[in-house]
Amino acid sequence: MAGTRNSKAKGTQAERDLIHKFWDSGWAAMRAAGSGSSQYPSPDIVAGKYGRRLAIECKITKETKKYFPSEEIRLLNYFSKTFCAEAWVAVKFPKLDWMFFNPEDLNEAGNSFSASVGLAELKGLSFEELIKT
Amino acid sequence: MAGTRNSKAKGTQAERDLIHKFWDSGWAAMRAAGSGSSQYPSPDIVAGKYGRRLAIECKITKETKKYFPSEEIRLLNYFSKTFCAEAWVAVKFPKLDWMFFNPEDLNEAGNSFSASVGLAELKGLSFEELIKT
Repeated sequence: MAGTRNSKAKGTQAERDLIHKFWDSGWAAMRAAGSGSSQYPSPDIVAGKYGRRLAIECKITKETKKYFPSEEIRLLNYFSKTFCAEAWVAVKFPKLDWMFFNPEDLNEAGNSFSASVGLAELKGLSFEELIKT
Repeated sequence: MAGTRNSKAKGTQAERDLIHKFWDSGWAAMRAAGSGSSQYPSPDIVAGKYGRRLAIECKITKETKKYFPSEEIRLLNYFSKTFCAEAWVAVKFPKLDWMFFNPEDLNEAGNSFSASVGLAELKGLSFEELIKT
C-alpha cells in the first residue's frame, strides 16, 4: 500500500514536471482530476497552443516496457475525437525523458497495447519533437 | 472546517453535474486537478466539441451575488488565450441552474469582479444557450 502511494506520488510529480515543460514552452496545460472521480473518459493532461490541442495519457514505469489496457486507449481516442484533440500516450521510462507515442504506433497484443524503449527509438517523439509536430 | 469541507464537496459535486451535462450533450469535458496542486493557471473545467473549446471557472454560492478576485479572472483569460479556448465564468446561484458569463460582462469593482442574479437575467447564458452560442 505504501508502495502504491509512493508510486502514485511519483506519477503525479512526473505529470507536474510535464505540465511545467509545456508552460515553459509557451503552451497551456492542465492536469485532470483523479481518474477515479469521473465516470467519463479523461486523459491525464490536456495541453494547447494556437491551433493544436493534445490529450495525453501519462504513465511512468520502472520497466523497459509498459502495457495499456485496450479500453484505456479506446477511451483516450474517444475523448480526443469528441474534444477535437490529438491523442498521445506519454511514457517515462527509467533514465529517459518522457517519450510520446501516437496510439496507432503502439504494439497490439490481445487485450492490451504496449510501448517499449525499443519502440521509443523507432516511433517515439521527444517533448521537443512533440510540440514541433 | 467541517463547513469548509462540506462547501468544497458541494462545489465538487456541482462541477461533476456540469461535466455530466456536457457529455450528455455530446461534448467532451474534464475537471482540473485541485487548483492548489499547480503553480500554473487552470480553469476548473475544460470542455470541447467540434471547433469550440471552453475554459470555465466554476463557483457555487448561497448568496445572490458572487465575487471573483481580479487575479482569478486574469489567470482564466491567460489560460484561455494560450490554450485557444473561450473563457467563461459559471455560477450556480440558489434555486437556479448554472449560469454562464463572458468575463467581459462581469461587473467590475475595485480589485474584484462580480456576477449577480440580476446580471444573470441581463447577460447570463443558460447551459443550453452556452453550447449553442
